Amino acid sequence: MSVYTPVGEAELERWLGRYSVGRLVSLEPIQAGIENSNYFVTTAQGRYVLTLFERLPAHELPFYLDLMSHLARHGIPAPAPIADLADRTLGELAGKPAALVTRLPGRSREHPGEPECRTLGALLARMHLAGRSYPAYLENPRGPKWWRYAAEAVAPFLDAGKKDLLESELDFQSHQRFPELPRGPVHADLFRDNALFEEERITGVIDFYFAGVDCLLYDVAVCANDWCVRDDGALDEARVRALLDAYHAVRPLEAPERGAWPAMLRAAALRFWLSRLYDLHLPRPGMLVHAHDPEHFRRILELRARRAAPRLG
Amino acid sequence: MSVYTPVGEAELERWLGRYSVGRLVSLEPIQAGIENSNYFVTTAQGRYVLTLFERLPAHELPFYLDLMSHLARHGIPAPAPIADLADRTLGELAGKPAALVTRLPGRSREHPGEPECRTLGALLARMHLAGRSYPAYLENPRGPKWWRYAAEAVAPFLDAGKKDLLESELDFQSHQRFPELPRGPVHADLFRDNALFEEERITGVIDFYFAGVDCLLYDVAVCANDWCVRDDGALDEARVRALLDAYHAVRPLEAPERGAWPAMLRAAALRFWLSRLYDLHLPRPGMLVHAHDPEHFRRILELRARRAAPRLG
Repeated sequence: MSVYTPVGEAELERWLGRYSVGRLVSLEPIQAGIENSNYFVTTAQGRYVLTLFERLPAHELPFYLDLMSHLARHGIPAPAPIADLADRTLGELAGKPAALVTRLPGRSREHPGEPECRTLGALLARMHLAGRSYPAYLENPRGPKWWRYAAEAVAPFLDAGKKDLLESELDFQSHQRFPELPRGPVHADLFRDNALFEEERITGVIDFYFAGVDCLLYDVAVCANDWCVRDDGALDEARVRALLDAYHAVRPLEAPERGAWPAMLRAAALRFWLSRLYDLHLPRPGMLVHAHDPEHFRRILELRARRAAPRLG
Repeated sequence: MSVYTPVGEAELERWLGRYSVGRLVSLEPIQAGIENSNYFVTTAQGRYVLTLFERLPAHELPFYLDLMSHLARHGIPAPAPIADLADRTLGELAGKPAALVTRLPGRSREHPGEPECRTLGALLARMHLAGRSYPAYLENPRGPKWWRYAAEAVAPFLDAGKKDLLESELDFQSHQRFPELPRGPVHADLFRDNALFEEERITGVIDFYFAGVDCLLYDVAVCANDWCVRDDGALDEARVRALLDAYHAVRPLEAPERGAWPAMLRAAALRFWLSRLYDLHLPRPGMLVHAHDPEHFRRILELRARRAAPRLG
């Protein structure tokens, strides 16, 4: 399981005394997620998620929490951090930085079709527009600098074919520069399991702890590589079209973004291949399950890199 | 009806383009409320209430909107104002100051018993604790200054008995000074119809547009005079006890508050008698219905003033 830090009911009840959320009703560890310890917390007032941060540097946490507050305040269904009586959203519990956020309703869709991709595209564009007025800055923590660090760390574990693919992709990406693409806060990890649906609406976008400032188009590419792929890793054209058209209707894609799309799909695939290789070969102590198979994203990267990727519009 | 300013769908659809809430799905005027024009607005993203401010001075609106944001951020189920793409919660629509806030679920309870009064008491105390860190200040707009203004305005319409009651109460209240009571932002109008329940939880506290800074105990008295009265206007002891005990368990009442309780119940009755007299005899143009009968609060005031009021604790 993926709860690294245990929290007891009595300890939590005391801690909640600093908040205006009423008495503790129940506490339940969440098994999903590999980066933090998460609990469902129900109080007399409502339902929340408690997160104990295991990995992120404390000075970066306000970027994430304030971004979630900012987006929620703009009507985006992001978890809203709850402030304590001293008006702080970041506290400390069991020796770890900790935050309480609203628990959003809905369930993720394992097999999204065109309607879900359309809904996602519109929401993603609205989230990007709402993010424009967010003033804080944090570089995408899984951007090119991290790729180089992770590639070096995992290289000893790769066979010649994979090493070739990795090196040639890093070389390709190092020649891509997109200074003219619109940038802003991106979720950067909006996989299917991070979007909650109720009927045809997305009622929750969760897990913002890989967010950062990057090209907005990168966020769209991350989504396309998860929401719009067939079992063999190839893109499903109809779903990609649904995602992009709905996005475009809210935030029109600019000409340079159309040109950058194939490289962006490759960058998004590279990032997840690398992080899965890293988690597999260099797991953190205590990280017992939930290491995803890296092969899936190797295949996706290879497909995007070796075949002519579909151009945008 | 109580919608003073009509808003069309095309006009609203254009206006919503400044927000991140998605396309307009439906627009429905709300008949309740006598101070502003209110609409239920449903979009692709969610359910909102649109308020066009008819009476409040524009410079006071940030006090209310920011208070609602502050409380929502602390886990109090207050409507959360939605910010537009320029990060402002106060806009302009149809020539009026306007705001879009979240629409909260639940229904008000016409006949609350002890369990509802207990829930209310705990929530009110939590709201007062959360309000402590709210930095803005606005004097209770229906406090003693306004009583004197309103008393003068309605006097010509009162018979001798009522005039006597009014004058003697104003005289009594003018000798009450509570500099030692805890003060802070109060809702000041938390009648049964402004609290929404789902099962045993309060899922919404609405209509903050009479809020201001005053004695916290005043807020409790306003609630007692509505939630805990029998048909004849007398207080139901069991419900008062439920309200106060639950409040006290979250924010312990201080000794001076116990002494001030009888006078506070009278002040809260006076305020609503006066406003109902005012709305009845000096209605605003266009205010066609929803003028409440002032007699109810005259009877309550008389009961509280002429009989020994129950002392606290």
